[in-house]
Amino acid sequence: MKKKLAVIALGGNALLRGDQIGTIDEQEQNTADTLQNLMYLIKEGYDLIIAHGNGPQVGNILMRNDAGETMYGIAQMPLDVCVADSQGGIGYMIERILRNTLKDHGISKEVLTVVTPVLVDINDPAFSNPTKPVGKYYTKEQADELTAAKGWIFKASPKGDGYRRNVPSPKPLAIMNEKVIESMARAGTIVIAVGGGGIPVYIDENKNVRPAEAVIDKDTASALLAARIGADEFYILTDVPFVYINYKKENEEKLEFLTYDMAKKHLDAGMFGEGSMAPKIRACMEFVKGGGEMAVITEATKLEDMSYGSKITLH
Amino acid sequence: MKKKLAVIALGGNALLRGDQIGTIDEQEQNTADTLQNLMYLIKEGYDLIIAHGNGPQVGNILMRNDAGETMYGIAQMPLDVCVADSQGGIGYMIERILRNTLKDHGISKEVLTVVTPVLVDINDPAFSNPTKPVGKYYTKEQADELTAAKGWIFKASPKGDGYRRNVPSPKPLAIMNEKVIESMARAGTIVIAVGGGGIPVYIDENKNVRPAEAVIDKDTASALLAARIGADEFYILTDVPFVYINYKKENEEKLEFLTYDMAKKHLDAGMFGEGSMAPKIRACMEFVKGGGEMAVITEATKLEDMSYGSKITLH
Repeated sequence: MKKKLAVIALGGNALLRGDQIGTIDEQEQNTADTLQNLMYLIKEGYDLIIAHGNGPQVGNILMRNDAGETMYGIAQMPLDVCVADSQGGIGYMIERILRNTLKDHGISKEVLTVVTPVLVDINDPAFSNPTKPVGKYYTKEQADELTAAKGWIFKASPKGDGYRRNVPSPKPLAIMNEKVIESMARAGTIVIAVGGGGIPVYIDENKNVRPAEAVIDKDTASALLAARIGADEFYILTDVPFVYINYKKENEEKLEFLTYDMAKKHLDAGMFGEGSMAPKIRACMEFVKGGGEMAVITEATKLEDMSYGSKITLH
Repeated sequence: MKKKLAVIALGGNALLRGDQIGTIDEQEQNTADTLQNLMYLIKEGYDLIIAHGNGPQVGNILMRNDAGETMYGIAQMPLDVCVADSQGGIGYMIERILRNTLKDHGISKEVLTVVTPVLVDINDPAFSNPTKPVGKYYTKEQADELTAAKGWIFKASPKGDGYRRNVPSPKPLAIMNEKVIESMARAGTIVIAVGGGGIPVYIDENKNVRPAEAVIDKDTASALLAARIGADEFYILTDVPFVYINYKKENEEKLEFLTYDMAKKHLDAGMFGEGSMAPKIRACMEFVKGGGEMAVITEATKLEDMSYGSKITLH
C-alpha cells in the first residue's frame, strides 16, 4: 500500500496561547501537548510535513529589534530576516520536542527543520494595500517619523490604543524548496517547513530572488505546499473541534462534511469570520481543488477520533 | 567518476567584517562576494555543504533579547533558541544570495537551509569551565544580579571594560541530521547547515534531547560533519591566504603543505594562536584523521587558484 502523505498546519495556540506571556517553558509545554496528538497519524503510517504559525514569536522578534536599536544602536533586520529567525527558533523547538515524543512512543524517524522561502508576486494587489499589523504599538508622532525614515505604512489600531505597522499579505505562488521537502517526507523524514507561512520572496526583472517586506498566511501557504507536492491530506489544527456556522448562536450548526461547493456557498454568504475561519476554509478549498483527497479542520486533541473534525472534500 | 563532496566553513568575516556595524546591506554584500568564489568548486563538479559562523549575529540577538525584556518585558529566549534563530536568519540570507549567484553563472541547483542541532556531552569538562564570552558588557553589579537570578557565569573582560557572560564551548559529538544532510548533498542539493557550530543539545538519562546553554566552535563542528559523512574535502575560509608560523615576524613561514604530524608538532609548540588559527588547525587535523582526503585553510577569493591555501593531509 502506498503510504499517505499529510501536511499538518499547527495554529498559533498549538505553540503559544493568548493568555500566556510566551516564556520558553510555556511554548515547550504547549508544543509537547500538540505533538503528542500527531503520534496517532504516524502510527497509522502517514508521512508527515509539519507547518506552523509564528505570530506571537515574530511579533516579539520585531519588538526586540526595535528595543535593540533604541538601547544599543544595533541595526534592525528587515521583516524577511525576522521571519527567517522565527523559522529557525520555532522549528528547532518543535524538532527537539518531536524527537522526544517519538522516542516516548518507540518510533524511530528522522526529523528535519528546513528554512522555507515562499514565492509571491511583487505585483500582487496586496502590496498596494497592506492589511496585516506587525510589531509594536506606536504613537502618531513615532509612526509619522518611521514612515518618513523607512517608508513603513501605519494604521490606527481598531481599539484606539495606538498605531501599528501594516504589511502586505500577498498570495503564495510556490514553495521554494517544495521538491526537496516532498522527497524527504516521502522517504520517511518528518519535515518541519513553511514556518509562519514562509519567508516572502519575489523574482525581479533580472530573475533575482528578492525579499518582500510582507507576511504570508500560514494556512494558505501550507495548503499550497500540500497541493503542489500531491499530499493526500491536509490538516489545520486550531482551537475548535469543528467548523460551525452561526457559532455560539441559537441556530449554531456544526459542519462535519463539506464539499467544495458547500464551503464556497457558506463563504460567499459571509458565514465564516474573515480574521479567523474564512482563510482556513479557503486554504482547504484550494487544497482539494488542487487534487488533495481531504482537508480537515479540528483540534489537535481530536485527531485520534475521526468522528471529530470538519472534513472538506471536492465532491 | 564519483563526484567529490566538500564541506565549506565560512568564517565570520565572510558574512560580516569587524569594521562594519552589521546592517543587512553590508551582510548581503559580503555574502555575495564570498559565494561568488564557490562557483569554481561547483563548476568543477563538487557537491557542497556550506557551514557558517554566527558570532556577531547571535551577539546581536542576545543584546536584542536583553533590550526587549528591559523595554517591553518580553520574555528572553534561552541561548539554544537564539542560536536557532541565527541559523534561520543567516541561512536564509546565504540561501537567497546563493540562488542568485548560481543563476548568474547559469547553474541549476537546489539550495536548502537546515536547522542543525549538534550533540554534546553534558559531562564534557567544558561545562565546569565556561570560556566563551557572549552578549553584552555588564557592570559588576548587573552581572552579580544576573548570576543570582539566572545562574549565569560572568568574567571580567580582558580589556577591563566590563563583565560578560561566559558559556561553555563543549566538543561536538555528532550532527543530529547528518544522514539527511549527506543524502541531500550527494543528490546535488547545496545544503546550508551547522550554522554557528550548531545548536548544542545533549541526551539526558531518560534519553530525551535537552538544550545545552553553550556554544560550539563552528570549525570543529563543520569538520566533524565532514568526517562523519565521508566528505572528500573540507575548506575553512578565513581572512588569510595561507596559515603561517611566526606570522608577521622576521622569520615568518608560509605553510603550504602540512601533514597531520607536522601540524601537531607546530600546534604542540604553540605556533598557532589559540583564539584564531589553533582551533582551525585542530578541526582540519580531526577531519583528515577521520578519513578526509584534504583540508584547506585559505581566503574565499583564493579558491580558484590551487597554488594558494594551506593543505592539510594525513600523510
